[in-house]
Amino acid sequence: MTAQEIESGRFVRQANRFTDTITADGSSGHPAEAGRYRLFVSYACPWAHRSLIVRRLLGLEDAIGVGVVDPIRDERGWRFPEPDPVTGAGFLSELYLSTDPDYQGRYTVPCVWDTAAGRMVTNDFPAITTTMETQFTAWHRPGAPDLYPEPLRPEIDELNELVYTTVNNGVYRAGFATAQEPYEKAFDALFATFDRLEERLSDRRYLLGDAITEADVRLYPTLARFDAVYHSHFKCNLRRLVDYPNLWAYARDLYSVPAFGETTDFDQIKRHYYVTQRNVNPSGVVPKGPLIDWTAPHGRERLAGRGAPDGR
Amino acid sequence: MTAQEIESGRFVRQANRFTDTITADGSSGHPAEAGRYRLFVSYACPWAHRSLIVRRLLGLEDAIGVGVVDPIRDERGWRFPEPDPVTGAGFLSELYLSTDPDYQGRYTVPCVWDTAAGRMVTNDFPAITTTMETQFTAWHRPGAPDLYPEPLRPEIDELNELVYTTVNNGVYRAGFATAQEPYEKAFDALFATFDRLEERLSDRRYLLGDAITEADVRLYPTLARFDAVYHSHFKCNLRRLVDYPNLWAYARDLYSVPAFGETTDFDQIKRHYYVTQRNVNPSGVVPKGPLIDWTAPHGRERLAGRGAPDGR
Repeated sequence: MTAQEIESGRFVRQANRFTDTITADGSSGHPAEAGRYRLFVSYACPWAHRSLIVRRLLGLEDAIGVGVVDPIRDERGWRFPEPDPVTGAGFLSELYLSTDPDYQGRYTVPCVWDTAAGRMVTNDFPAITTTMETQFTAWHRPGAPDLYPEPLRPEIDELNELVYTTVNNGVYRAGFATAQEPYEKAFDALFATFDRLEERLSDRRYLLGDAITEADVRLYPTLARFDAVYHSHFKCNLRRLVDYPNLWAYARDLYSVPAFGETTDFDQIKRHYYVTQRNVNPSGVVPKGPLIDWTAPHGRERLAGRGAPDGR
Repeated sequence: MTAQEIESGRFVRQANRFTDTITADGSSGHPAEAGRYRLFVSYACPWAHRSLIVRRLLGLEDAIGVGVVDPIRDERGWRFPEPDPVTGAGFLSELYLSTDPDYQGRYTVPCVWDTAAGRMVTNDFPAITTTMETQFTAWHRPGAPDLYPEPLRPEIDELNELVYTTVNNGVYRAGFATAQEPYEKAFDALFATFDRLEERLSDRRYLLGDAITEADVRLYPTLARFDAVYHSHFKCNLRRLVDYPNLWAYARDLYSVPAFGETTDFDQIKRHYYVTQRNVNPSGVVPKGPLIDWTAPHGRERLAGRGAPDGR
């Protein structure tokens, strides 16, 4: 999640550089196999958070291993608290550079390592979740939800585009802006989308209706970080998440699902942003607040829906 | 308001350096006189805000002139948008240095200039309001409130001490801390006092009971800046002011009094902190939020009290 460039006060996210694909039929040279791939994540990072949610919702914990980096990043990039037991890496950068010694980009999570080929396959975060959904179906748990159903893909993709631009990446465009105008544009677009989502969620339990989909997986990590970090640290402070009745209840509804709630680590999230991003917070001091009750009853059962997936 | 030193991550406010006094009997060499003194303020600064509130409550507008500096301060200190028409100064520093060429401290508002002596009398902000209250009584408007009544002074002084340490200066100790521990101490003390004040204001309209006093004047400027600035910029984010029913209604009750409301300039306040304090906010970007309705009915009339002073 760290790629960035600054142009005239505007934040521009670096394009992803490793975009090989894993395919069920093996045609890409990286065949889907249980035990072959290792997913590297930070609990702090919203882009990585998506992949943890999907892995858990689909029951891929045994098929795809996970390595977790320390939430605090210094100039050497993401670090493992202990050398990664599978690859032996101490820093994520080692895996990027052993795959491409000329790599000049930033070392981002999430990324997927092919233990058979001994190289990085992808750090293309939007593709990582859809790959788990569509190429690893052989290892999905019984009764796993279809997070990316064919008939809904156009609507999911369209919504994801809006949410990515104005919400997921929108908070970064607001928070990393170094000039007033690009900040205000990002701010306005973000809260305009929140208004649309608030309305959309008034009569649907999830974004696409009765069941959780990839669209919910992509929106949730930003909501989980919103009041704890983005509201203050990224100056996204027109309103807080808790000021939107539907959106806030929807976020708590998702949080009550273990795949969402148990992959949400508020402590690591806060420490990551406030300690690592000294360009925004020079002191590195981490705010003690805010007080938020993510476990308050959400009341969303009243809406049509199949309800949350079972206890996963 | 700018005096500071940093010691092991702890913020320590500079002692005030000019502490001559103005007395009704002239014994100090600076006799209270109408038209003789000029008060320099910034609308952004909470310490100066007090003096503007008291001057207006007591009807001293004609007796004591005011010069207002620009809310944005650079390395040269507070600047006048136009040279001050009375003293000719372009920067506040000129008046400090013409009084004491060896002055090494920071150039702070509020401060009081003696136009007859041609020198700075005081930048001792706690004394400026009490001087107006006790030494300028000859120029108080008819019916002006007694903001510092003799029988209440011990209680007012005690409360002021608590409010200064944990609230007025407490937010600075939180926001300017460069280490976690002093930040957390300031944070805890601040919100502990908010809890006490919330309780105290449950059955009293003002801090001392039925009438506005110096204690209210000192608390209000911090409350006015709280959600707009301190909550995010200074990481005072356990709760917002609006989350305290009594304290928030009390703040709106005061805001409805012109001496308080018309001296409260949220735009200058926000621009000052976010643009000037690059040590806290390197980008200088000013948040667009939060949405707060200071004019919502406060409902405090139900409490015993003489109510707000008349239309001043």
